[in-house]
Amino acid sequence: MPEDENRIEPSQRGVHVTRVGDGQAQAASPDFVAVEEPLEIRIGQSEGGRPKHQAVSITMRTPGHDFELAAGFLCTEGILKSRDQVAGIEHCGHGPSLTNTVRVDLVAGVAVDVKRLERNFYTTSSCGVCGKTSLEALATGATRVVTAPGFQVEARVIHSLPAKLRERQRTFEHTGGLHAAAFFSHTGELLGLREDVGRHNAVDKLIGSQFLAGTLPARESILFLSGRASFELLQKAVMAGVAIVCAVGAPSSLAVEAANEFGVTLLGFVRDNRFNIYSGANRVSGF
Amino acid sequence: MPEDENRIEPSQRGVHVTRVGDGQAQAASPDFVAVEEPLEIRIGQSEGGRPKHQAVSITMRTPGHDFELAAGFLCTEGILKSRDQVAGIEHCGHGPSLTNTVRVDLVAGVAVDVKRLERNFYTTSSCGVCGKTSLEALATGATRVVTAPGFQVEARVIHSLPAKLRERQRTFEHTGGLHAAAFFSHTGELLGLREDVGRHNAVDKLIGSQFLAGTLPARESILFLSGRASFELLQKAVMAGVAIVCAVGAPSSLAVEAANEFGVTLLGFVRDNRFNIYSGANRVSGF
Repeated sequence: MPEDENRIEPSQRGVHVTRVGDGQAQAASPDFVAVEEPLEIRIGQSEGGRPKHQAVSITMRTPGHDFELAAGFLCTEGILKSRDQVAGIEHCGHGPSLTNTVRVDLVAGVAVDVKRLERNFYTTSSCGVCGKTSLEALATGATRVVTAPGFQVEARVIHSLPAKLRERQRTFEHTGGLHAAAFFSHTGELLGLREDVGRHNAVDKLIGSQFLAGTLPARESILFLSGRASFELLQKAVMAGVAIVCAVGAPSSLAVEAANEFGVTLLGFVRDNRFNIYSGANRVSGF
Repeated sequence: MPEDENRIEPSQRGVHVTRVGDGQAQAASPDFVAVEEPLEIRIGQSEGGRPKHQAVSITMRTPGHDFELAAGFLCTEGILKSRDQVAGIEHCGHGPSLTNTVRVDLVAGVAVDVKRLERNFYTTSSCGVCGKTSLEALATGATRVVTAPGFQVEARVIHSLPAKLRERQRTFEHTGGLHAAAFFSHTGELLGLREDVGRHNAVDKLIGSQFLAGTLPARESILFLSGRASFELLQKAVMAGVAIVCAVGAPSSLAVEAANEFGVTLLGFVRDNRFNIYSGANRVSGF
């Protein structure tokens, strides 16, 4: 699955806009917006005659890296356990939707629990739903993140990450409409970057690239988020075994609880040479 | 359903953080994060013995204005058509989840199509999914937005909106973690403001407040979004009959297509005394 096959559609599209500033309008001029299109993810076996695949999700995403998105989504939802379960991934739509359906073919004999998805979204325990039930649902598929003794990241490395992300984003985006998720090493080296109109998709694409490369869990990678840190994003980090999550924006209460519960170091407001540590301060040094 | 009953839980929670800046750490100090908790929305009839309500959604939201969130979600998904269909809305959880389940009671004899939700998320037409199918799915529940001839908003009014929103947000939020959605009149008067960790929830709460007040469609209100404009948010605006949508951030390609298709005036990058008009420029004057 080379990268080029994964980028059949462009991630930005030209539109005509009227720019208004200080009471003056420029004539309609070309501009670019981030492309948003639905992606249907299907999973199943192809062996023995006509393939039967079950649709498990439709997400509004920016085209590109669709195979990674599908793999990352299925991995972080606890459906796929390892790349060995996957025989192949391909686009399988027709007509105008050609590139908006992705089919994940399972290796013969591999059974996955797609009902888990329903349970993830739809806990119907007798006590109803609350933050605790969300954490418990996550606990059935994830374990506490563990790193080698003494594994730490220096504060000066953390301070350097926002500029490195912006530098790379400048190459990729002219639309102002994309969220970014990146993996950095503990020395501040950029290991991967994905962008999407949906921040959960950007994280799924990034984690999916590691899943397909067989390099999960990503215990020594720093997950860097261009926006805020919600419970859902912490859930994905925990499922990928990520030990350090840095967000340019604020975390939510349940993101902080999940980080504490699963041993994740969570940093927020990582910008302008400052940050807040919400959990796991032992993994940050040099301050 | 007075507002106070709607705000049983606080929207922010104290946490302890270590603040790191310029290589120096302050001792752990108290800070506030936006509360994120799941909300289960149920709908059904209460008449004739034991109430039977079907769970139709779980969303991660900031507690507060839960009844409006439920009403707004059901309205913008095309399940509820008018407030006359609703007999009452109440919290109905147990124990720690007391305030995380909301039950919408339908008036006796009213039937709603909850299967519609599945269809909205899960189009399984033979041609697969694409932007066109998303627009078509919306078209089965919505009509083109129409305003009175000559209805316009002056550019100087648009320029004034970001500061007005920030002024009010300053009162409400100390967390940096909340999206805001507001209705303004065409003269720039703030008509309503709702905040949430999820931007779709902020819009649902805002539209739900108008739905429950019986004041939809909101043809002459300006919907102002603190972030980006996605297809999903345009979908909600169209379902509420909103004619003008202003976003501080960028729109997506499918948001622009939806605005064109349904006659919505869509403005992006509304900040610093400038904005871009992506569709429906005829409703903006004075530039």
